[in-house]
Amino acid sequence: MIAHIIAVGSELLTPYRQDTNSREIARILMDMGIKVGSISVVPDNDEEIARVIKSALGRGQLIIITGGLGPTADDRTREGISKALKLNLEFNEEIHQWIKERFRQLTKKEPPDNLARMAFVPQGAEIIHNTVGTAPGLWLEVEGKDLRVLALPGPPAEWRPMLEALKDRLKSLGKKNIVRRVLRIAGLREAEVEDRISPFITGVKNPSVIILASPEDVQLHILATSKDLEEAGALVNSMVEKFREVLGDNIYSFEDEPLEKVVGDLLRQKGKTLAVAESCSGGLLSHRITNIPGSSDYFLLGTITYSNEAKVKVLGVNPRDLEEHGAVSEPVAKQMAEGVRKLAGSDFGIGITGIAGPGGGTPEKPVGLVYIALSWEGGTEVHRKRFSGNRLQIKTYSTSHALDMLRRRLI
Amino acid sequence: MIAHIIAVGSELLTPYRQDTNSREIARILMDMGIKVGSISVVPDNDEEIARVIKSALGRGQLIIITGGLGPTADDRTREGISKALKLNLEFNEEIHQWIKERFRQLTKKEPPDNLARMAFVPQGAEIIHNTVGTAPGLWLEVEGKDLRVLALPGPPAEWRPMLEALKDRLKSLGKKNIVRRVLRIAGLREAEVEDRISPFITGVKNPSVIILASPEDVQLHILATSKDLEEAGALVNSMVEKFREVLGDNIYSFEDEPLEKVVGDLLRQKGKTLAVAESCSGGLLSHRITNIPGSSDYFLLGTITYSNEAKVKVLGVNPRDLEEHGAVSEPVAKQMAEGVRKLAGSDFGIGITGIAGPGGGTPEKPVGLVYIALSWEGGTEVHRKRFSGNRLQIKTYSTSHALDMLRRRLI
Repeated sequence: MIAHIIAVGSELLTPYRQDTNSREIARILMDMGIKVGSISVVPDNDEEIARVIKSALGRGQLIIITGGLGPTADDRTREGISKALKLNLEFNEEIHQWIKERFRQLTKKEPPDNLARMAFVPQGAEIIHNTVGTAPGLWLEVEGKDLRVLALPGPPAEWRPMLEALKDRLKSLGKKNIVRRVLRIAGLREAEVEDRISPFITGVKNPSVIILASPEDVQLHILATSKDLEEAGALVNSMVEKFREVLGDNIYSFEDEPLEKVVGDLLRQKGKTLAVAESCSGGLLSHRITNIPGSSDYFLLGTITYSNEAKVKVLGVNPRDLEEHGAVSEPVAKQMAEGVRKLAGSDFGIGITGIAGPGGGTPEKPVGLVYIALSWEGGTEVHRKRFSGNRLQIKTYSTSHALDMLRRRLI
Repeated sequence: MIAHIIAVGSELLTPYRQDTNSREIARILMDMGIKVGSISVVPDNDEEIARVIKSALGRGQLIIITGGLGPTADDRTREGISKALKLNLEFNEEIHQWIKERFRQLTKKEPPDNLARMAFVPQGAEIIHNTVGTAPGLWLEVEGKDLRVLALPGPPAEWRPMLEALKDRLKSLGKKNIVRRVLRIAGLREAEVEDRISPFITGVKNPSVIILASPEDVQLHILATSKDLEEAGALVNSMVEKFREVLGDNIYSFEDEPLEKVVGDLLRQKGKTLAVAESCSGGLLSHRITNIPGSSDYFLLGTITYSNEAKVKVLGVNPRDLEEHGAVSEPVAKQMAEGVRKLAGSDFGIGITGIAGPGGGTPEKPVGLVYIALSWEGGTEVHRKRFSGNRLQIKTYSTSHALDMLRRRLI
């Protein structure tokens, strides 16, 4: 089963707007066992829309179009479909009434005349109701051909519920049984993960495994297909078990959750609290922690002590150590973690100090050198790390490492 | 002049990788006066690549392809071009030697045999040297047709310098004279900006003006084309002057710089320092400020006082005010700004307290209610704002508003 995705909109061909619908639809189709054969972005133009539809004929069984279904003269998807498949556009009075009523409900205004454009339907097309906006979607089974065309409005808020409503129909077209799982890993680099799992994945096509790495973490995307759902699940589970054996505690989530969520849940479960002292990460650690709703349950205080004075005054870092070892050093990271823990009265304290670049590096203390400390009732540990990348990447690596140190202490 | 962009790579049709090359290339072409007619994403497959190339014939004068030029059997762009345009692939020994030598330089290893694949060149194609990697690019003028095909390797680090090297050639194809300017605006909503500028842009096609809004700011993208560069520049400048009249100080950058950069430059120029106390923005303000290299010149301290205790202990907020007015209130915002200014010994202090949601709202203090205070030598001002959006959007609106308050005080 192959689907072709078409994104309609002249603005998507300028640098001002990126087509993000197609990728999200590709993800939804993947979970249904439908493969994407091509993605095309075309302008608001009958001929261009018709051309890509025609070029998909014979090369796939499903075409999904987003955009171009609105009421203005620029909205040309109906005309494009009609041209490509040689189907008349028929005016549907019932739909017209529905659209007008819906417009009144949503805007409390009288509907303008141009709404009538949305009531023209290619011969034989089924209307897919829009539960959010006014533009109806269209589903068309092309006569004599193993091909379906689904046209959806552009805004994700409008097409998402429509696609959800069509889930069973689309699933019945795709491979029947798909199970997908995302493992997230901290504390190992991409190459180390690859090394450890390669014996299990080399030459194996089902489940398929994809490794994705970013400064935040390394992810393993596992996808199995099978005649029945249970078997697909078993294929994924058996792969997950093999990965668990070689990756162990480095896997921090089996459910595709971000590290700050996993650490937050652990803190809440154990009734523990956290405070952080950041220098080179500049507030990103606090920002990540507080992106999780409810983080006020366990996050007491963050400080970004950029200046030496602030490190001394707010956190009680020893000025002699700052002078002797410099702000980017093991004793300073340690005292930052201990100082912020004491100041906040929290169970855990984190300290991060380093050089995020691009300037400020020296041969002894190069850009990317970061000290990360974790302080708790039983003591303080400090890691010396050397990250590479740009300023934001070094900030991100530092914060992920800090969160992972805390996670390991909590489990 | 119309260009069609083709991104080659099976991984770009999965949810794991997004094609970002095409958008960046569209931006570069726009500055050269070349319009993008379509964007296609196709798998690593000769037939599919050939099909989209052929479908572009007669519909444009330039095709830019990224990806599929590497040494592996999956890299099929050379074959796709050869099939589409019926050109033989010819082995070029000189290029082969160059590739092998380059591989040795880059990896200090002996080149593998498959590198030879990259030395096959469609008949008549010109080699575009790769100054970063090993895969050569290709430039082809199709005989008897007003069409050029440019094939580039996939990684941006490799194709960017190639496109830069071809700049004059591409410029000579596009409209000769383009001037583009981006204005950034704070303190007004999108609808307010549109309202004020609409008399100047309604019905005007040159310069074209596009309004883009995000929680960070509102941007005006102005683009003029003309027979000569000076005239295009004059068209843009005259539009900018009109905008300046109706938008005034709300325009914070005429050079497409982020707000945190503009504010940082102002602080440095005036020799002033800053400290911030965040609650609901959770560190995002500090993160944004410290994303600017060199921000340690003026940024002394950030605190994220999530708990009431921290607000009292670290910033000296009055516990009675916390009890009487709640943490999300004008007096608390004020005392946070004043407290952090005093603690850091800085010229300016910012305090942000609010409800970022999704939980925690009440009828009196709904999600999105944020108090933002700015304290300086002469006093403290507090703004009460009501933002809408999700947690991250409310965090972003709050930090942009805070930065803008400081900017207005500095100018």
